[in-house]
Amino acid sequence: MDLRVVLVEPLYQGNVGSVARVMKNFGFSDLVLVGPCKLEGEARAMSSHARDLLENAKIVSSLSDAIEDSNIIIGTTGVSGLKFDEHLRVPAFSPREIKQRLTGASGKVALLFGREDQGFCREELGFCDMIMTIPTSEVYPVMNLSHAVAVVLYEMSNIEAGELPLADEFDVRLLHDHIAEVLDDIDYPEHKKEKTRLMMKRIFGRACLLEREVQTLRGILRRIQQNLR
Amino acid sequence: MDLRVVLVEPLYQGNVGSVARVMKNFGFSDLVLVGPCKLEGEARAMSSHARDLLENAKIVSSLSDAIEDSNIIIGTTGVSGLKFDEHLRVPAFSPREIKQRLTGASGKVALLFGREDQGFCREELGFCDMIMTIPTSEVYPVMNLSHAVAVVLYEMSNIEAGELPLADEFDVRLLHDHIAEVLDDIDYPEHKKEKTRLMMKRIFGRACLLEREVQTLRGILRRIQQNLR
Repeated sequence: MDLRVVLVEPLYQGNVGSVARVMKNFGFSDLVLVGPCKLEGEARAMSSHARDLLENAKIVSSLSDAIEDSNIIIGTTGVSGLKFDEHLRVPAFSPREIKQRLTGASGKVALLFGREDQGFCREELGFCDMIMTIPTSEVYPVMNLSHAVAVVLYEMSNIEAGELPLADEFDVRLLHDHIAEVLDDIDYPEHKKEKTRLMMKRIFGRACLLEREVQTLRGILRRIQQNLR
Repeated sequence: MDLRVVLVEPLYQGNVGSVARVMKNFGFSDLVLVGPCKLEGEARAMSSHARDLLENAKIVSSLSDAIEDSNIIIGTTGVSGLKFDEHLRVPAFSPREIKQRLTGASGKVALLFGREDQGFCREELGFCDMIMTIPTSEVYPVMNLSHAVAVVLYEMSNIEAGELPLADEFDVRLLHDHIAEVLDDIDYPEHKKEKTRLMMKRIFGRACLLEREVQTLRGILRRIQQNLR
């Protein structure tokens, strides 16, 4: 499995170094940082023998740059996250469930981790195909960032890469544009459109669509449009 | 599972604080420290909201004091540990194998973690009933102490992921009947229908639809039909 770790605006350089270390421990190397804090001595110290990985991390200014060539985008959130936008967070899968869903697929999977204090904003959650939550105690569910990465990578590291080619991110985007078009064509209520589009993104995201499935879905949409005219 | 974490002569107080935090994250509280380093501000800072656990940690001077009331003693070692005493280290089980072995048992399990630099000495390894090793990359197998604890406790904790309110099977069946109806309405090619219906069943099956998602999807289908007429 071709796995990328994306840290969104990490606040503490020690955490970034620790994440680099645990990535190397589990055999991963693709680290992307979106607008990170300064990375100096403490980050290098915590990365230990993964300094190469830290130094090769790609630094970008926006999340969309970080995920542009990814097939599946998975956001990791704490259970106790802010209560806004429940429909953006539910359902959330455990690392093991995510692993099961990805088993047999091939392609680039971007694992997103949010800020240490605030997690993700609404727009960032909207990018995600699936939401992952590590099952923790209700008494104290907030994990240290690098611990969360350690647990997730431990779970993901023995994923057996399979033969099924996941749909290209570009084609999936076209599918979602196409769905939006059809919603327009059928005069779907304006105030429901955004929510519904997001819900479709989640549903098909969780399904990990294959290339030919995207084509079939678009074929159905095209035929609906032909028949509407 | 009645689980105790024993840190043998930890060298860095930040690690001890981090271990306290991740223990509380996974619902454990029994922490014993054998001859630890000084525990001051940095340990408290890293423990975050698990300061109570850090302050209640039992400090002892010898490993035998730390494990005297334990039923099973498990030592965690890195694969790349010193090469002495191979027979003391082998066989080593993964955290998952250890969990399977402990399932159904009752009693106190002591999980031992060694020094950050040297791990365990020969005598300490001799105390252990089982040896556990986290599967890591050969390139860089040495994990940070608190990361190792995080991975092991994640595996050992029986905290279940929350129950997803999945859609009722009856409603999902209605959804698929509805899709079939729409395929009829749009004169979808007869010879492709069965295959396509099956594909839709697969896609939505993998997505594990929620109740309100089924309702939204059916709402879209209804509106397509209205607009077709």
